[in-house]
Amino acid sequence: MSGFGNLLTVDEALKRLLESIRDRKLDVEKVPLEDSVDRICAEDLRAPVDIPPFNRSAVDGYAVRYVDVLSALPSNPVELKIVGVSETGYDLETLPKVNPGEAVEIYTGAPIPFGADSVVMAEFCKRDGDRLWVSKPVAYMQNVSVKGEDFKTGELVVAKGVKLKPWHVGALASLGIVSVTVYCKPTVLVASTGLELKQLGSEGGSGKIYDSTRPMLKALLKSINCKVLDLGILPDEPTYIMEAISKHLESIDLAVITGGTSLGLKDATPEALDMLEGSKLVFHGVRMRPGKPTGAYVVKGKPIFMLSGFPVAAFIGFKAFVEPTVYALTDSKPDPQPTVKAYITRRLAKPTGIKAYVRVRVYRSQNRFYAEPLRLTGSGILSTLTRGNGILILEEEVEGVEEGEEIEVLLTQPFEEVA
Amino acid sequence: MSGFGNLLTVDEALKRLLESIRDRKLDVEKVPLEDSVDRICAEDLRAPVDIPPFNRSAVDGYAVRYVDVLSALPSNPVELKIVGVSETGYDLETLPKVNPGEAVEIYTGAPIPFGADSVVMAEFCKRDGDRLWVSKPVAYMQNVSVKGEDFKTGELVVAKGVKLKPWHVGALASLGIVSVTVYCKPTVLVASTGLELKQLGSEGGSGKIYDSTRPMLKALLKSINCKVLDLGILPDEPTYIMEAISKHLESIDLAVITGGTSLGLKDATPEALDMLEGSKLVFHGVRMRPGKPTGAYVVKGKPIFMLSGFPVAAFIGFKAFVEPTVYALTDSKPDPQPTVKAYITRRLAKPTGIKAYVRVRVYRSQNRFYAEPLRLTGSGILSTLTRGNGILILEEEVEGVEEGEEIEVLLTQPFEEVA
Repeated sequence: MSGFGNLLTVDEALKRLLESIRDRKLDVEKVPLEDSVDRICAEDLRAPVDIPPFNRSAVDGYAVRYVDVLSALPSNPVELKIVGVSETGYDLETLPKVNPGEAVEIYTGAPIPFGADSVVMAEFCKRDGDRLWVSKPVAYMQNVSVKGEDFKTGELVVAKGVKLKPWHVGALASLGIVSVTVYCKPTVLVASTGLELKQLGSEGGSGKIYDSTRPMLKALLKSINCKVLDLGILPDEPTYIMEAISKHLESIDLAVITGGTSLGLKDATPEALDMLEGSKLVFHGVRMRPGKPTGAYVVKGKPIFMLSGFPVAAFIGFKAFVEPTVYALTDSKPDPQPTVKAYITRRLAKPTGIKAYVRVRVYRSQNRFYAEPLRLTGSGILSTLTRGNGILILEEEVEGVEEGEEIEVLLTQPFEEVA
Repeated sequence: MSGFGNLLTVDEALKRLLESIRDRKLDVEKVPLEDSVDRICAEDLRAPVDIPPFNRSAVDGYAVRYVDVLSALPSNPVELKIVGVSETGYDLETLPKVNPGEAVEIYTGAPIPFGADSVVMAEFCKRDGDRLWVSKPVAYMQNVSVKGEDFKTGELVVAKGVKLKPWHVGALASLGIVSVTVYCKPTVLVASTGLELKQLGSEGGSGKIYDSTRPMLKALLKSINCKVLDLGILPDEPTYIMEAISKHLESIDLAVITGGTSLGLKDATPEALDMLEGSKLVFHGVRMRPGKPTGAYVVKGKPIFMLSGFPVAAFIGFKAFVEPTVYALTDSKPDPQPTVKAYITRRLAKPTGIKAYVRVRVYRSQNRFYAEPLRLTGSGILSTLTRGNGILILEEEVEGVEEGEEIEVLLTQPFEEVA
């Protein structure tokens, strides 16, 4: 418990863990395209067809041969003969061909008839029956969406490992793709230990506190698309904890145990994990604050995390280790994180060699962002996450931050506007 | 269709819409705490108890009276008598009182016994049976988590309008709160119009394209916690469209119709909405690119959006109007958006008076961010969203961006690292 001397840095610990599970990937499954949002694509998806599937008009107007209207001017319009109409949804094969001196009335999205190579917008035309006067020239292929300009047959549209977003759904739908192979959602065993804990909703136990870390962790896991197997509060008995995990090991992808993991006395969790058949300690104790007693084992290729029972420390441990591991199991990257550059409102000192996660309140005043470090920052203090709306990460080598320094802050919630 | 002369700006159009639905809010419902993540809190939640509920130890060690150990030194430790132990989960009322010259062995999270006012960490103590030698003084209340320091009874923990996050779940769980009143998920009617469209999964129709905008919009709506009522592709018949919406108006909160909304010929959607009983046009046509033909009606207090049938224009219209409206119906704010400041890799010109949403590819090279505007940017070109990973918003008054200018870019997906 004394000092950070022999502990790993966050980067070293994470690297060691990811190396030990390098060859493990989650199973895959096929899902309907409309259910694929926020899932991780498990195949390289290529365009089976060209999009657009044919040359089509980008405007309402008249399909022409551009050479016919080269000399068109408002004072000297070019006269053409209208030989038909191309409406959206029409079949190209049934459209009249555009010969020299001819035009076809056309609507946005409609196929460009054979012979035509550009579209004059309606506002530059006058019409009388089948006679058309064009008062402005067009360039070759002007106002035409060219076959294959959006996607070409065989082109990579979504790469394996990409987290599917609504616009991917749109792109894949445009290609007629109805289902996607994605990585299965990982099943994560979650359990708390700690004699001080009582289950939310239970009565009595005046010396006990409600277990708040586990509900938070379950919500965090669900937010990155995990299924949760919740074992509740386990007794502080290494054998019991070991057996509880062992029983479910086959059916889970990873586990997160919270509490009983300090580097000091009375820690049932590491003892339990040491007893687990085939278990290998990857790290225990990290040069970070909060979250120092964070640890990880790997058992039969499955990561088992020990997070602090203190909610804030568990949150930071989750962000630093559990989340990157879940992404690694699908070769994917997390969504980009919202950040702002903010002026720090008071000096912060920290020991070097430790990565610090400082909870701050970010606000904007006269177009400048400010980050006010919260005064009370114990790792048990959940209000630093609900009162704050940002996290300032100070790397190992940093000694502190001066008042007025401008530093990047991770935003966890919307910032306030202050006059 | 010609020019942007009389159209509203994005801000004006949105303001006008939000004013017209100012008094409307969604219904509320009670949900279990664990199901409340990403829902909008519909009540001010106050702490029903103090957290911590009692003074408790923040470390493993010995609870003492700080005055007893003021003179403690490694060379001259203070001797105390151990009169008991306080373990996590113990009831304060059953603990021995700490009198002058006494100490109680204590564990992290355990209640501080009456009489004691601070905790000496175990590493600064030596013990032999019930005798204890303390080699370092402590300050008053040092290593004590004080009753109510996290949350005080009556304190506002989560305000109405806050989007609930995993740490709110943690905070509310710590307070013993088992359910939360949240705004109901809005039900959104979605329909496409457009003769060029065929339903995803259907065969034939060589002159038609798959409807990609509607699947994307449905995914976008679900991503902001809406329920979707999907009417599919409607025929381009104003009366039919009007009746389809009218039939469901009672049971929906808003509607999004895509396609048939250009400012030119053959637009069935505005005609349908004009016919709808009690409908009021709020705006049609916005000084934005893409998305110029975006429009909105309000019918019996319910917003009905007309978005372009072109997927990219519909996406921008969704972000600019539909999303802020959904948040307004719950008095809440969107999550913070991920942005980076990036150097623009080539000059961009734009007409003033129009808000432009430029799709860019953001990458990082030698710790600098660059944003490369995509060449092909038609509003139908979905690949600008799948190839790109960012959107550069250029306000009305901006004339363009010079190569090398540093500008804030919205990140829609992770950026790449380039050597």
